[in-house]
Amino acid sequence: MIKVAILGASGFVGAELLRLCAAHPLFDAVRLFGDSQAGMALADVHPHLALAYPAARVERFAPDALDGIDLVFAALPHGQSQAIAADILGRGVAFVDLGADFRLDDAAAYARWYKEEHKAPDLLGRFVYGIPELHRDAIRAAKAVAAAGCYPTTTILALKPLLPLIDPDTIAVSAASGVSGAGKALKEDTHFNTVDENFTAYGLLSHRHTAEMEMELGGKVLFTPHLAPMNRGILATCTAQAKGPCDPLAALAEAYAGEPFVHVSERSPSVKWTLGSNAIHITARYDERTGRILAIAALDNLVKGAAGQMVQCANLMLGIDEDAGLSNVGVWP
Amino acid sequence: MIKVAILGASGFVGAELLRLCAAHPLFDAVRLFGDSQAGMALADVHPHLALAYPAARVERFAPDALDGIDLVFAALPHGQSQAIAADILGRGVAFVDLGADFRLDDAAAYARWYKEEHKAPDLLGRFVYGIPELHRDAIRAAKAVAAAGCYPTTTILALKPLLPLIDPDTIAVSAASGVSGAGKALKEDTHFNTVDENFTAYGLLSHRHTAEMEMELGGKVLFTPHLAPMNRGILATCTAQAKGPCDPLAALAEAYAGEPFVHVSERSPSVKWTLGSNAIHITARYDERTGRILAIAALDNLVKGAAGQMVQCANLMLGIDEDAGLSNVGVWP
Amino acid sequence: MIKVAILGASGFVGAELLRLCAAHPLFDAVRLFGDSQAGMALADVHPHLALAYPAARVERFAPDALDGIDLVFAALPHGQSQAIAADILGRGVAFVDLGADFRLDDAAAYARWYKEEHKAPDLLGRFVYGIPELHRDAIRAAKAVAAAGCYPTTTILALKPLLPLIDPDTIAVSAASGVSGAGKALKEDTHFNTVDENFTAYGLLSHRHTAEMEMELGGKVLFTPHLAPMNRGILATCTAQAKGPCDPLAALAEAYAGEPFVHVSERSPSVKWTLGSNAIHITARYDERTGRILAIAALDNLVKGAAGQMVQCANLMLGIDEDAGLSNVGVWP
Amino acid sequence: MIKVAILGASGFVGAELLRLCAAHPLFDAVRLFGDSQAGMALADVHPHLALAYPAARVERFAPDALDGIDLVFAALPHGQSQAIAADILGRGVAFVDLGADFRLDDAAAYARWYKEEHKAPDLLGRFVYGIPELHRDAIRAAKAVAAAGCYPTTTILALKPLLPLIDPDTIAVSAASGVSGAGKALKEDTHFNTVDENFTAYGLLSHRHTAEMEMELGGKVLFTPHLAPMNRGILATCTAQAKGPCDPLAALAEAYAGEPFVHVSERSPSVKWTLGSNAIHITARYDERTGRILAIAALDNLVKGAAGQMVQCANLMLGIDEDAGLSNVGVWP
Repeated sequence: MIKVAILGASGFVGAELLRLCAAHPLFDAVRLFGDSQAGMALADVHPHLALAYPAARVERFAPDALDGIDLVFAALPHGQSQAIAADILGRGVAFVDLGADFRLDDAAAYARWYKEEHKAPDLLGRFVYGIPELHRDAIRAAKAVAAAGCYPTTTILALKPLLPLIDPDTIAVSAASGVSGAGKALKEDTHFNTVDENFTAYGLLSHRHTAEMEMELGGKVLFTPHLAPMNRGILATCTAQAKGPCDPLAALAEAYAGEPFVHVSERSPSVKWTLGSNAIHITARYDERTGRILAIAALDNLVKGAAGQMVQCANLMLGIDEDAGLSNVGVWP
Repeated sequence: MIKVAILGASGFVGAELLRLCAAHPLFDAVRLFGDSQAGMALADVHPHLALAYPAARVERFAPDALDGIDLVFAALPHGQSQAIAADILGRGVAFVDLGADFRLDDAAAYARWYKEEHKAPDLLGRFVYGIPELHRDAIRAAKAVAAAGCYPTTTILALKPLLPLIDPDTIAVSAASGVSGAGKALKEDTHFNTVDENFTAYGLLSHRHTAEMEMELGGKVLFTPHLAPMNRGILATCTAQAKGPCDPLAALAEAYAGEPFVHVSERSPSVKWTLGSNAIHITARYDERTGRILAIAALDNLVKGAAGQMVQCANLMLGIDEDAGLSNVGVWP
Repeated sequence: MIKVAILGASGFVGAELLRLCAAHPLFDAVRLFGDSQAGMALADVHPHLALAYPAARVERFAPDALDGIDLVFAALPHGQSQAIAADILGRGVAFVDLGADFRLDDAAAYARWYKEEHKAPDLLGRFVYGIPELHRDAIRAAKAVAAAGCYPTTTILALKPLLPLIDPDTIAVSAASGVSGAGKALKEDTHFNTVDENFTAYGLLSHRHTAEMEMELGGKVLFTPHLAPMNRGILATCTAQAKGPCDPLAALAEAYAGEPFVHVSERSPSVKWTLGSNAIHITARYDERTGRILAIAALDNLVKGAAGQMVQCANLMLGIDEDAGLSNVGVWP
Repeated sequence: MIKVAILGASGFVGAELLRLCAAHPLFDAVRLFGDSQAGMALADVHPHLALAYPAARVERFAPDALDGIDLVFAALPHGQSQAIAADILGRGVAFVDLGADFRLDDAAAYARWYKEEHKAPDLLGRFVYGIPELHRDAIRAAKAVAAAGCYPTTTILALKPLLPLIDPDTIAVSAASGVSGAGKALKEDTHFNTVDENFTAYGLLSHRHTAEMEMELGGKVLFTPHLAPMNRGILATCTAQAKGPCDPLAALAEAYAGEPFVHVSERSPSVKWTLGSNAIHITARYDERTGRILAIAALDNLVKGAAGQMVQCANLMLGIDEDAGLSNVGVWP
């Protein structure tokens, strides 16, 4: 068994990592760190995990807590990974980080979008950007992976194979996310009565995930995220000016042939098809009337957009089956 | 009192018209037509109206049923108004139709988008397109109004004042609607288990409301509607290439100063602010980074996008207070 | 116009009072108090009210702030009314309080259920318990009313006419509420991701509203509230041992004949029929098999269960039409 | 591998069986029957299964279609199993039926609750009632199991260990179910706009699942089911007169010690903890004030209340690990 430590175990992604580890044939989640709930029984923090981890407790993180660990999953608030990455990298263990800290390869872009200087710019080059379908070989060879964000994963997988067909400076992405993307912190924006029966755009012109999209896609991306009244799921609706008549669906089908978690189809995808699974469903069209392409992708932001992608990356890093512990079937309905 | 007949009283818009008439100081809904439920007590069809209309019944429509009526509201399935419009127009009563039948001024555009020939093309010129904020004087003078569709109302009000600032051939609209927009008919797409916890795009490249948008906005509009898991509400997120640096929010504020139902604000609007009301909330931005404008509008599809707009138009046609029977306050939370 | 002050204007009930006052022919909400948001424009606190109250601001409460006020609505956190009631009563203005502070007529029952001594027990007798259908004459004659709680209103209206038919010591009430009943405060229990797609019981054996039910119904009530994933609405499902075969539906119909906001019907009521309205829908059955009665009632917890009932009581106190400013039609769907 | 046939593959339970089989180490779903969608690719009927079953098709059932099959799962509309049970039993294969057809051991009770004569009363004795926690040994020895209904599983598991403590003739059960319990058929009751933001009781005094509860619990059960606006989940809130002071939580903990899918805890259970899993969470209290017990249980109606329980039963019948293919961790949030 592979000994796994989870940093941020009391959050939504931490909980999801624990759910996936419970189904994984080789991952044994032996250390669960979460400062805000340290000392509590896991069953009290996450009752849905009570039967699977009857004796587990959440601990406060300490420097030597990773001794004997083979794999570190970090799902920490933005910025915290920068403080501990050097130590973890020094241990030589496999490290998959979900924060935004090490996703961008350019410290200047980080400072521009995150409004602060990067605290460990020399480590940026040590991390591979974690989208297995696009960087599989590099992930296999890496000791550290910065798993892609939920919106970027959806958008980049929908558009990257279409780059030869479009003008990347005309990309517009309108995406809707379930509320879990905002995390477990208590905010007026995530109060049930704010979100239920509501739909609203946020982060207008300024959402930080734009940086990842532009890093992978090139061009100027106008990204508008929305909050939808659902627990999970992201749907990204992407448009761009086409260079000419083209078949974007064929381009996607060719690019993702044989991928275990990517389903390309003419049918307009539903986020619900992916609930709890590591699948992403994608479609695309060329619009003769306007000369533009339309590409739409759907995934579960906590799985393919977070914990599942982390497990998929870790599987690759550790040389085990890429789909170990992961389902490609959504919980439906 | 003004004697009102409602065609389509057993549907969602019919029910909403009845709710609004119950609050209207002058409208008395005396004849309720609905073929599929004809003969039933209204309280059995719509229990939420039982206290307001304890004795009302739904009737089958017949040619002479409109004798003595002052105002006809029609909320019928697509195509049915074409068959009865000539008769209603011949009576000289005020007529507000919500169907798509008489919205477009061009029978060829109708045939192109609706995939069938228009059956009463000679009557198209008799109808004013029903968005009071844009065609108030014409509505005041009209005997017949074709109230705008829900998506077009949202999009057109968000973008029309910005036309001097943008290239209309680059407009892209990504909109989300509550499920009531699809009506009361039983379809797999509107089964609770299909929609709940889901988000999906539909009508890709081909939604008929595009025609209304292009009629009012000019240019080529790429419109992508989505179904969101909520009863009501439409949010339209619109982008277009700007001609240059500009202040779209100021343009909106100027255009709608003094409008009783339009609220322009820097804040990103929420559909929930409009629930049950005739209000529309709009914001806009100019994005220096990409040179594009972003405009976002929210309304209740069954009120400002349907029944409320019908009442607002009828108020104008009949020379009474434009806001009679209408609220500008959403039911929140 | 009647000058109205609202204490707790930034909360959910305060917002609902403002919505109802905007529709009321005589109520002018001129002073809005809310300490936590004092100084903010109302449009920033409650954007859904922006068009109706464009210039209003939320103020900090001060002793002399009620000068010139005719009617005080208080929707404050539990316990706060006890501190200010003497001053308000001294002014001789109409006062409708929604807190639990003055609902019970027995200070000992208050101490037992609320786990603290009452701070103004001598004022308890000055307040009439605010359910107009049961205490209309007393409310008309009162200067101070303690509007009933949301669960008690639902339960008491469903059961009080049935008391001659049942053994009150066998009453069991299982009720479900929308989340707005828990207020606007940020709590893990009201985070969207806690509530959405969830259903759970809370306050087992100990919910304080039991005290009001027992005060009005007599007997021993076992009350189990549940949280349902919806903004508003309460449904109370009540059972009790019958004294013998009986017709509880007829008893309800007789008791509420002519009531403007009570609808008695054989049909099982839906909370959605009442959304945004002051209506309550009730049904009942006698079960021959078990010898028990089943009574079910539905209302909107923020209207008939809070702000609407407050307005209804104030209308009675001030001698104006009981239904002024109130709708009996739910916003449906 | 065990060759599995699924009757009713195009319904909700059929889809869930396919999801569970995809995760099962030994079950190979090789024949999928569903008359209404016969001939369609499974990926078109259930897109969420497209990656797991890329080549599967739905077939029309025919007498010889079960040749070579080891295990039959039937999830058919009420009444259909009676017509085919004799043939399946004659084959000697393992048969798990989810319909109500063979759950009751008494044909008279069937006729009384289902309002029709049973068509194969002689086969009733061949089926074991499928709740593994209560009838494990009998299921192990059986060739045919009638898996318990969703409401009965929840209620019976909550109350059976408490029978020595209570008067069974005073049991009242108020339960709420997600909409998937009503199946995929298109009905006004399951239209999104009927259910969303709604809560309502149905089947008053007459829900057929009462029969199963009384069979297993004895006594007179007054059962009132409700529809809640969620996809899945059942919460049953059960009360009964206690014989005297008692500790029902201890009784439950003792009864279910070591059970892989039952979690007994003082905490009030949430249906969401069980989403997609085969877990059931239960709590109980004795109320000194009223002398009654309160027991509450939560599960996923499509898993522990349907497909998961079927798999659990089949695992026992086939002598493989009871939890093979089943998770005890809910998909949360």
